Amino acid sequence: MKTLKDAFNHTLQDIYYAENQLVKAIPKTAKAVGSQTLKKALSDHAKETKTQVEILDKVFQSLGEKPSGEKCDAIEGLIKETESIIEEASGTALDAAVLAACQAIEHYEIARYGSLREWAKTLKLAEAHDLIGQILDQEKAANSKLTNLAVEEINA
Amino acid sequence: MKTLKDAFNHTLQDIYYAENQLVKAIPKTAKAVGSQTLKKALSDHAKETKTQVEILDKVFQSLGEKPSGEKCDAIEGLIKETESIIEEASGTALDAAVLAACQAIEHYEIARYGSLREWAKTLKLAEAHDLIGQILDQEKAANSKLTNLAVEEINA
Repeated sequence: MKTLKDAFNHTLQDIYYAENQLVKAIPKTAKAVGSQTLKKALSDHAKETKTQVEILDKVFQSLGEKPSGEKCDAIEGLIKETESIIEEASGTALDAAVLAACQAIEHYEIARYGSLREWAKTLKLAEAHDLIGQILDQEKAANSKLTNLAVEEINA
Repeated sequence: MKTLKDAFNHTLQDIYYAENQLVKAIPKTAKAVGSQTLKKALSDHAKETKTQVEILDKVFQSLGEKPSGEKCDAIEGLIKETESIIEEASGTALDAAVLAACQAIEHYEIARYGSLREWAKTLKLAEAHDLIGQILDQEKAANSKLTNLAVEEINA
């Protein structure tokens, strides 16, 4: 990695790997929680995550590249954290801690897509910029939904 | 972990571990980057992170507990991601990708302190709530500073 374009490509491959891992992890998390509302919110986000992988496919296409992922240590750690909670917690703690861990994942994604969109702008990759912006808006909305659910139901 | 208080305690120990890991990791990151402005921002944040550990000590005290950390997979992964960038990148890519990875860490912390503060409110832990709020505000300010630095200098 030497140029900003290299950093963009590397981070795009990281997040592609991350989203593909989440496509597998979120349904397991949805299955583990007790609250029906949280279960539904996670199941909906699992479907949305699949569409995000498709949008990322289009980002790679717009660059004339084949979609490919690169092992991302951060998402591995974040998913492991959620798995540990599922193993160790029950009742109120399970739902509250899982929801909080999912918010940490959303925040991670918001940070990565924020950087990618900013880099796409600097690199004048107009199509990639718009597609990444779409996903960023979805992640922000998903995080807000989880925050509301935490405040209104799970933590109370 | 069964109750919301258990989830609070567990997450507090996680973030205590995380901040202590960051006290060691941030100076190494500051040393690796090229931009003097980024180096200064990271060095300042390393000092701030030390004070955050002290504030967390006070949170434990307010609960009548001894400060203790619990291995946090998420921060391990996030720090590993930064270390890989330092190994693999140089020039423009190094500073841009390190800054972005540091923002991902800030976002992770913002998510965790956001949940902890909300839980402290529900659990009527007034002192812990205020102390965690102080750190949350610092992390948000640190992230904004990094965003400005990215847009105004590093990515350009």
